[in-house]
Amino acid sequence: MLVSSPPNGTIKLADYVFARLHQLGVRSVFGVPGDYNLKLLDFVEPSGLHWVGNCNELNAAYAADAYARLHGISALVTTFGVGELSAVNGIAGAFAEKAPIVHIVGTPSRTIQENRVFMHHAFPDADYRRFAEMHSHVTAAQTNLTDPRLAPNQVDWIIEQALLHQRPVYLEIPDDMVNTLVSSSNLHDRPSLQLPDPPEIEAEASGVQCLLDRVYSAKRPLILVDGESRSLGILEEIDQLIKATQWPTWTTVFGKGLVNEELPNVYGVDAGKFGADEAFAYHQSADLILHLGPHLSDTNTNIFTTIPPKTIAIVLSQNTLTAGANIYRDILPARFLQRLLKELKSDRLVKVDGPPNTIQAQPEVVDSDPLVQKHFYSIINPILRKGDVVLAETGTASYGGRTMKLPPGSRFFTAVTWLSIGYMLPATLGAALAQRDMLKTSLEKGAQEANQKRRAILFMGDGSLQMTAQELSIIIQEKLNVTIFVINNNGYTIERVIHGRKQAYNGIAKWDHAFALRLFGMDEETVSKSFFRAKTWGELKTVLASPDLKEGEGVKVVEVFMGQEDCTGPLLDLLQRQVAQEGTAS
Amino acid sequence: MLVSSPPNGTIKLADYVFARLHQLGVRSVFGVPGDYNLKLLDFVEPSGLHWVGNCNELNAAYAADAYARLHGISALVTTFGVGELSAVNGIAGAFAEKAPIVHIVGTPSRTIQENRVFMHHAFPDADYRRFAEMHSHVTAAQTNLTDPRLAPNQVDWIIEQALLHQRPVYLEIPDDMVNTLVSSSNLHDRPSLQLPDPPEIEAEASGVQCLLDRVYSAKRPLILVDGESRSLGILEEIDQLIKATQWPTWTTVFGKGLVNEELPNVYGVDAGKFGADEAFAYHQSADLILHLGPHLSDTNTNIFTTIPPKTIAIVLSQNTLTAGANIYRDILPARFLQRLLKELKSDRLVKVDGPPNTIQAQPEVVDSDPLVQKHFYSIINPILRKGDVVLAETGTASYGGRTMKLPPGSRFFTAVTWLSIGYMLPATLGAALAQRDMLKTSLEKGAQEANQKRRAILFMGDGSLQMTAQELSIIIQEKLNVTIFVINNNGYTIERVIHGRKQAYNGIAKWDHAFALRLFGMDEETVSKSFFRAKTWGELKTVLASPDLKEGEGVKVVEVFMGQEDCTGPLLDLLQRQVAQEGTAS
Repeated sequence: MLVSSPPNGTIKLADYVFARLHQLGVRSVFGVPGDYNLKLLDFVEPSGLHWVGNCNELNAAYAADAYARLHGISALVTTFGVGELSAVNGIAGAFAEKAPIVHIVGTPSRTIQENRVFMHHAFPDADYRRFAEMHSHVTAAQTNLTDPRLAPNQVDWIIEQALLHQRPVYLEIPDDMVNTLVSSSNLHDRPSLQLPDPPEIEAEASGVQCLLDRVYSAKRPLILVDGESRSLGILEEIDQLIKATQWPTWTTVFGKGLVNEELPNVYGVDAGKFGADEAFAYHQSADLILHLGPHLSDTNTNIFTTIPPKTIAIVLSQNTLTAGANIYRDILPARFLQRLLKELKSDRLVKVDGPPNTIQAQPEVVDSDPLVQKHFYSIINPILRKGDVVLAETGTASYGGRTMKLPPGSRFFTAVTWLSIGYMLPATLGAALAQRDMLKTSLEKGAQEANQKRRAILFMGDGSLQMTAQELSIIIQEKLNVTIFVINNNGYTIERVIHGRKQAYNGIAKWDHAFALRLFGMDEETVSKSFFRAKTWGELKTVLASPDLKEGEGVKVVEVFMGQEDCTGPLLDLLQRQVAQEGTAS
Repeated sequence: MLVSSPPNGTIKLADYVFARLHQLGVRSVFGVPGDYNLKLLDFVEPSGLHWVGNCNELNAAYAADAYARLHGISALVTTFGVGELSAVNGIAGAFAEKAPIVHIVGTPSRTIQENRVFMHHAFPDADYRRFAEMHSHVTAAQTNLTDPRLAPNQVDWIIEQALLHQRPVYLEIPDDMVNTLVSSSNLHDRPSLQLPDPPEIEAEASGVQCLLDRVYSAKRPLILVDGESRSLGILEEIDQLIKATQWPTWTTVFGKGLVNEELPNVYGVDAGKFGADEAFAYHQSADLILHLGPHLSDTNTNIFTTIPPKTIAIVLSQNTLTAGANIYRDILPARFLQRLLKELKSDRLVKVDGPPNTIQAQPEVVDSDPLVQKHFYSIINPILRKGDVVLAETGTASYGGRTMKLPPGSRFFTAVTWLSIGYMLPATLGAALAQRDMLKTSLEKGAQEANQKRRAILFMGDGSLQMTAQELSIIIQEKLNVTIFVINNNGYTIERVIHGRKQAYNGIAKWDHAFALRLFGMDEETVSKSFFRAKTWGELKTVLASPDLKEGEGVKVVEVFMGQEDCTGPLLDLLQRQVAQEGTAS
């Protein structure tokens, strides 16, 4: 599998890096070639990894972020200066929302850097540390491989940092280090890089006891699953807890897709005062909220309104359990929950009836009526299948997408905190590749997976699409099963809602989406079975029922037209406030 | 012109900022709307500025960079976090190659920042200084407007820094500062923000004397105009010097487009050993080289081979004249050259015959033969008109484009140092807008400009195009006169040349460029007169002769097909070295 056969006990450094990533289950590597990473790229495919040449580095970073959220870790290769800086907003998003990307930057040779030679992609002062310093603000760890004796441990260390912090890390490889021989012993001695558990400490036992006391005395309890549960690695334990307690369970926006929404006590996203009245009332009267994996940004908490009050919350975050004034530090969340589940006596738990959890009826719509946000996602909902990844881009799509009921085994991506519009299309690429890679790996390991087609289903506004549209060509090239609903509502509706409802600056250039698939590499015949348009419910139903859409493989694009001020939930609230202000201002 | 009428002597802060930019001749503002800059954007159009909503922030930064290089300063507005970080690679390029962009970042309100509220586009630690720190590495100055008493002077100071350093600056405006009233007195007291000249110092006089001594004793002199002459503001003086001395004159790649190439003693780009033999011989035997505005990156100096030897060079750079061991500091380049020109006695100058400066004959090509890089740019050359801006993207286009002879009043953009592929398409937008704005401004001032249609003409490879292709839709929307030659050579030929000639990672996704204009907003009828294809010389000649291309207005795209390893000059050298190495390796 390696490019060449180095002497026993040694390996070329680039082989070492990619072998480590392979050991961690990575199968696709994202990035763009550049002058200082070309030699590095020679080692990608021979290491058993698939090179995904993205259209640009920001798109590559977005894709790597999504891959990491599904698979657990991902790899991105860029070139010094221009490449790494183009990617940095994607890296920052992965930092904010916790996606462990190993960002490998190919840099000029040590000779060039040491002599401060003014090469291209550098500044006239030939300070080669500048861009690494910039990345120190948006990555959990940074290292630069300049000595073959240290390099293998540096590689292992930085990957461990990515896994531990669940955040991107920054790994510089000078051009002349790529082919340098290093010791290969680490690869054999510790092939998985599994982080060792710390010793169990007293705080864990007392934390469990504290939690059990509160759990047994609760009369109106609920569970709130937040998005950092993913990076804490406690999804399996949470599933058991939901089943063991039978308590009413909600997620945050960030937590959506991390729990089985088909369980009768799971309600979907806690929308606070914008959700169902009965659910809101239950929350208001709760006396215990188990808040798991908290992430307390304004956008993940309905502007801080859905954060459980401290008096009734028990919060499990990275290494810490907080129950009012009692704080238990340095606990291991997964082990903590396992211990809790083991000691939990179900017969001592209150049996509560949560609010009604009726299955949302399909809205009644008139076929000739134009599409509206309010009903759109409910009408689409039935097409979702087990194991699909659903992605709802920042904007109206996020507020609609989060109301959908996900089938088991689905995962969900949406606007949480970073909210960088344009993210979702490359993220769809990354998610679909992770889906395919993970399925393949599990089949190789002998899993008896039903050969059901899994898809990535994206909802994205026309404004967001313009940011990163070219990545559609890579999705087509990779022959991924991806269905994209492009919401054509004439610009940045989310911004119109916030401010400047009628302002021209919230508009966008006019595109004719019918030509996107052709530009991006699909042949005419395939496009005729892959591009759809709907302005009315009747048209949408026809599209959704079409075998080309339902059963077809590959990329499908459905352009759906909605009003430029059409929105729902908290967005509608904001819009109405703006309209009211306009009334008083004039 | 202002949004509202504040009390006498005061003005809203956002009005102040945009009024200052308007005073400096800025007429277009680039950027993307975002949650924290919407209120700011309310002030753009009412200030007499045109808002260009770009497809994404990197594209916006690229466009602003090009606008600044032509007009002298430009403005970019992004939103906190996601927006500013997406733009940062473009800002870094403007730093490396000197383009003064005022990068205005709309940030969360002072209340949010002071209380470290965890808002979207921030990190969980709500450290609101992080992204400003990152920008301190790639901008000449940074400031944050948090106090209305200080704000006007801060705005003036940072714009002065941009003008002085000819580099981007970073200006944060918290959301709640936008409408704050500030003093307007600066706007009236110093309306142009022209930097005052420092006092003339002794070094200037002795520098002139030193230079004159050398000039008068030179037997084989030449002038080398480098690209920082633009940011030094000495183009007019250089033009006079070239005419006064009649000495053989070359430019670097970066300097191309800054001198009048129709003068008989101007030879174009000094290509060192890759250029004409006679020119190379003249350089080798020179005893004086006046090197103006040096920029000594590998890519601007044919890997350092065209840097004049210190023994025969006199170098005028920012604030410094260097003549061997004699260094004259703190001089003002423009004033220095003006003094030199005044004191220069033409009759004491050697009259030299430079190497032959024959007009390149049109290559003889067979109509049925496929296009090749070697002759392509010579065949295209005659279509260039006075005042056109020519842009040749990093890659084969840059090596070919620099061999073209420019008509007077043209400007030239190409790969100098930053070499961020994808730059040139948004740069074309920025350049064409600057062209239009500057023409309009000079007409308003009473200039008798012949109403000749000026165009921007772009040469760009298919790989680079994929990076930033969507910006074509803004060029179309803005109704700019832009002609684009897309070189379809199946991927990153420049990278194939450097390393990995046959490697898949240097390939790109397959696009059908025929559909680009339709996707990006052009109607079918216009496309039929705007999109052209050529694979052979005969086809190319037909396209070039077509009235739709020659006389038509708006956007024209010509897709030209060339071989994936077809290259010229130093690139061919690199490729052949690679082929030779393959021979020995196997």
